[in-house]
Amino acid sequence: MTTLYGYFRSSAAYRVRIALNLKGLAYDQAPVNLVKGEQRGEEYLARNPQGLVPALVTDDGARLTQSLAICEYLDERYPEPALLPADAAGRARVRALAQAVACEIHPLNNLRVLKYLTGELGVDEATKMTWYRHWVSEGFAALETQLSREAGSGDFCHGDAPGLADLCLVPQVFNAERFACDLTAYPRIRRIVANCRALDAFARAAPEAQPDAG
Amino acid sequence: MTTLYGYFRSSAAYRVRIALNLKGLAYDQAPVNLVKGEQRGEEYLARNPQGLVPALVTDDGARLTQSLAICEYLDERYPEPALLPADAAGRARVRALAQAVACEIHPLNNLRVLKYLTGELGVDEATKMTWYRHWVSEGFAALETQLSREAGSGDFCHGDAPGLADLCLVPQVFNAERFACDLTAYPRIRRIVANCRALDAFARAAPEAQPDAG
Repeated sequence: MTTLYGYFRSSAAYRVRIALNLKGLAYDQAPVNLVKGEQRGEEYLARNPQGLVPALVTDDGARLTQSLAICEYLDERYPEPALLPADAAGRARVRALAQAVACEIHPLNNLRVLKYLTGELGVDEATKMTWYRHWVSEGFAALETQLSREAGSGDFCHGDAPGLADLCLVPQVFNAERFACDLTAYPRIRRIVANCRALDAFARAAPEAQPDAG
Repeated sequence: MTTLYGYFRSSAAYRVRIALNLKGLAYDQAPVNLVKGEQRGEEYLARNPQGLVPALVTDDGARLTQSLAICEYLDERYPEPALLPADAAGRARVRALAQAVACEIHPLNNLRVLKYLTGELGVDEATKMTWYRHWVSEGFAALETQLSREAGSGDFCHGDAPGLADLCLVPQVFNAERFACDLTAYPRIRRIVANCRALDAFARAAPEAQPDAG
């Protein structure tokens, strides 16, 4: 059986849950409580030295880390439905949209960074929220422009089927909503996310639907 | 002709230069001066709404953004020499190592983030340097463990030929050295980087060898 080591609110774990669901793959969940610091425990570090979730152990024993690498692995092993388009330019576009979330927004706003801000840097809660919203607003403004302007966009980030970019975007929007970011300036993003959320694969991957949701 | 929009010191542009060189592809360079803020100018934003380098315009007119998406595109269009191994598990490992740099270290330490720290957050130079070194040390400690422990490692991050993980690692080490990070605790990383630097494709991609090096 495939086992996902994750955390209900982790954006990166949420991406992999969506990918597994889109592929129709069954999996067990092994929750790693990030707030309690379980990702820094000896047991988890032996599994993933990065001390990050998610990690995926597949039914044939492969031990995978980094959410986008995991999603691409799933797409290679279980090609249908595809998370990436067939043409190289389309694949580059979808990967770039995914990375615009995974490399430009999410790394700045995850739990360990927010903890460093309020801990080591001693910033107050309001300044932390401004930081969070700043990177969301920078990233979403650019994404909104790309999604509105580029011919590749459709009901989803690329065409009319969900893929790698959508499974990054939806968890980022979930997090932005949790931090009360104003998303009115991003109608195209909101429309795509609404289309995703209407799908069972996304709904079942939502944080509140997970066994460790607190 | 293929044109790379980049900046000599940008880690992300440096990655793409290495990939282009490894593939033996000729390209023009269009420098975008990040310190002067040219990436925020109207002309560049029309090209890449993300306001980030690199962007690559290929000889057949494809306009690509996000360094890892660009490198994967190059690998798909020009398969030899391969930047990723042939097996799915190997590909997942290399992508995860690349993303351990590109999603966990570099996003926290690039110019716009350091500017936010000293500007909006008003932190002093020493605190900024501590921030920089903290994320390098977190990331490199994990990478060193993986590279030392995992059977896939060789003279390079994966086996005995350079690939996607190496072209992320070398620019990150360049940057860490520029910020005077102590790298003595990472002998495996240093050995791999030395092997890379001995190759012409990496040497020609180095920041100091670029036309806009100041």
